[in-house]
Amino acid sequence: MSAAQRSAPLPERLARAALSRLMEPQDAAGLALVKAAGPTDALRIATGVVKAGAGLEQEITGLLADAGGPSRWAGMAAALKRWQPRIPDLAPERDLATMSRLGGRLIVPSDGLWPAQLGDLGLQEPICLWWRGHEQPLPAVGKSIALVGSRDSTSYGASVTGDLAYSLAQRGYTVVSGGAYGIDAHAHRAALAGGSAALPTIAVMAGGVDRFYPSGNEDLLRAVSNQGAVLAEVPPGSAPTRYRFLQRNRLIAALSAVTVVVEARWRSGALNTAHHAESLGRAVGAVPGSVHSANSAGCHRLLRDGGAVCVTDAAEVAELAGPSGAALPEQREGETHLQDGLTLEDLILLDALPLRSTTSVEKLSAVAGLGQESVRAGLGRLGLLGLAVSERGGWKRGAGSA
Amino acid sequence: MSAAQRSAPLPERLARAALSRLMEPQDAAGLALVKAAGPTDALRIATGVVKAGAGLEQEITGLLADAGGPSRWAGMAAALKRWQPRIPDLAPERDLATMSRLGGRLIVPSDGLWPAQLGDLGLQEPICLWWRGHEQPLPAVGKSIALVGSRDSTSYGASVTGDLAYSLAQRGYTVVSGGAYGIDAHAHRAALAGGSAALPTIAVMAGGVDRFYPSGNEDLLRAVSNQGAVLAEVPPGSAPTRYRFLQRNRLIAALSAVTVVVEARWRSGALNTAHHAESLGRAVGAVPGSVHSANSAGCHRLLRDGGAVCVTDAAEVAELAGPSGAALPEQREGETHLQDGLTLEDLILLDALPLRSTTSVEKLSAVAGLGQESVRAGLGRLGLLGLAVSERGGWKRGAGSA
Repeated sequence: MSAAQRSAPLPERLARAALSRLMEPQDAAGLALVKAAGPTDALRIATGVVKAGAGLEQEITGLLADAGGPSRWAGMAAALKRWQPRIPDLAPERDLATMSRLGGRLIVPSDGLWPAQLGDLGLQEPICLWWRGHEQPLPAVGKSIALVGSRDSTSYGASVTGDLAYSLAQRGYTVVSGGAYGIDAHAHRAALAGGSAALPTIAVMAGGVDRFYPSGNEDLLRAVSNQGAVLAEVPPGSAPTRYRFLQRNRLIAALSAVTVVVEARWRSGALNTAHHAESLGRAVGAVPGSVHSANSAGCHRLLRDGGAVCVTDAAEVAELAGPSGAALPEQREGETHLQDGLTLEDLILLDALPLRSTTSVEKLSAVAGLGQESVRAGLGRLGLLGLAVSERGGWKRGAGSA
Repeated sequence: MSAAQRSAPLPERLARAALSRLMEPQDAAGLALVKAAGPTDALRIATGVVKAGAGLEQEITGLLADAGGPSRWAGMAAALKRWQPRIPDLAPERDLATMSRLGGRLIVPSDGLWPAQLGDLGLQEPICLWWRGHEQPLPAVGKSIALVGSRDSTSYGASVTGDLAYSLAQRGYTVVSGGAYGIDAHAHRAALAGGSAALPTIAVMAGGVDRFYPSGNEDLLRAVSNQGAVLAEVPPGSAPTRYRFLQRNRLIAALSAVTVVVEARWRSGALNTAHHAESLGRAVGAVPGSVHSANSAGCHRLLRDGGAVCVTDAAEVAELAGPSGAALPEQREGETHLQDGLTLEDLILLDALPLRSTTSVEKLSAVAGLGQESVRAGLGRLGLLGLAVSERGGWKRGAGSA
């Protein structure tokens, strides 16, 4: 059995499926409970079947303290009250059957298919992922790039997103985004068009993957699920609430080596995704735009705050994705002039050479401020490059110096 | 006598005037000679009137080694050969008379009017400055900002430059640029229009200040000399050679607290100015633009290389100019929502509240995944903010949550 075929036992799968319905994403106490007790015991405790011992409560307190963030831990009793109202809704077998009917599945952290990079989230790693799309390995972090941005994208944002996503997919990267209108939709669409690799694009949803949301993107998201993957940490039937959108952003960031913000207003959810990426130590890119465009103000804010790298094409984005030499950006075509390699002295001499009439070594020496021997030696070098020519005993510029 | 009225003795002035004609800008051996021997003795040595002792040659070697850069020092004999052809052209009294006739003057490092910030150039500090314009204090480094960029500016570059220069001049900053077509001209023009302070703009020329170059900017540069200052380190009559353009750039950078590149191609002289600023430890700003504009590629290159800060308006530029609290950018107008200050729990609850029909605490508890007590407390807080309203015993969203 290969690593990718490794699969968690059914009781764990059912327990995690149930827990993901019981607990909102990033319910810190719940995640700590799962970590401390394991999913099956955690479910039995969370649903009141068994009582947590004092030792377990202490362990959870420790895990929450280690995780740092502001702890909402008010003890197990408070957490149980929070979970209790959802117990009647639990039906993990039904949820798994739903996924199977939709051509999808559930994956959990001990599955071979689980994206290892989500482990960087620590305690914030999701309980499980609901996955709509063909079963195939999800890309490693170094081959995933998130393109995110405003829903109200401009034609500039649409065009840049399309170029980036198409070109990244062609280079074999998986383009991760959030399935929303605007930048997200342009990213998925262009990645589907450009994708030569197995999995051109992933949409990470804030609500359940049974419904494609927003409805205007239904056809697009269906295509993403057919050619790529549609993922969510919340179970089928879950509504995409604002809170879940914010939590979802951490998954986009954690799945990807680079998070690129293509267009964002001064305040934008895309900046939230960028901050998640930054706090995970992942690279953040921002696409520059007109200073007159409010839709680029968020990108410029990221650049100015120093957290993001300015990216203008797919090669520059790919460079951020990893140390692979193959991803280095192509040498930029500059207007290389022959003069570029000259020493300062020869440059001064070249400046002093007249364009039409010829002049003498003595005059060049005075004009250029160089000794006559230096002028003679320099004229020899410039002559070899075609930058100086001798005519009737005098010197002028050569045709190569245009 | 105030510090600003402090004036170097005539022999030193005449010597420096002559030396600036004898030596090209940044002639390292010449500058070291002036530093080691003082200007009057340096002139007598450089013109062959007296011979440099071995001790002096050693001192020059030491100064050049201290200055670091690639030394062109091939000994005094080679330097004398370089300077010799220009000796017949020396006429410092005539040059000073020319400046006086043009309503200008010469300033030297020991003058009270000398801009102290040029001292940061070390051995590369110019021998003197030829200044066309009214005699008045030049701005301190913290009040000078350089705006530079391509000669072939776009309408975008023109508009951004105009906005920046006008607004910086209105804030009392002096806008420094190079008097060229394109970005430079837009910067000078808008600074003249916006200038309320004594010296709205300075043009630093690559050639002599007796002629306004390029000729298409003659009227503009005349206005700059009338309302601001036109400066050069080369004496009247000097041609603006390519070499002198590159050397001139170090003066623009050294005069200014910040060098902002508004528009520049991938290879551009403006990047040279930015690199001078960086090596002086001065701030560099770059204006972002469309990734499709070749005229912004140089700015994006500066941003990507990490040497430049992304600047989009005058307030952000002024912030780079100094630690003065007065220059902090105004608070950006964001779309502030009342919801922004909510705790995660209240945000989850708000998401769960229906927009039109009302719902019960029990249902909210299940939908939001919060205990009923938490829901009641949260509804109280949301109610106070107008985000939740109670109707006929149920709850729905308030008008404040639009």
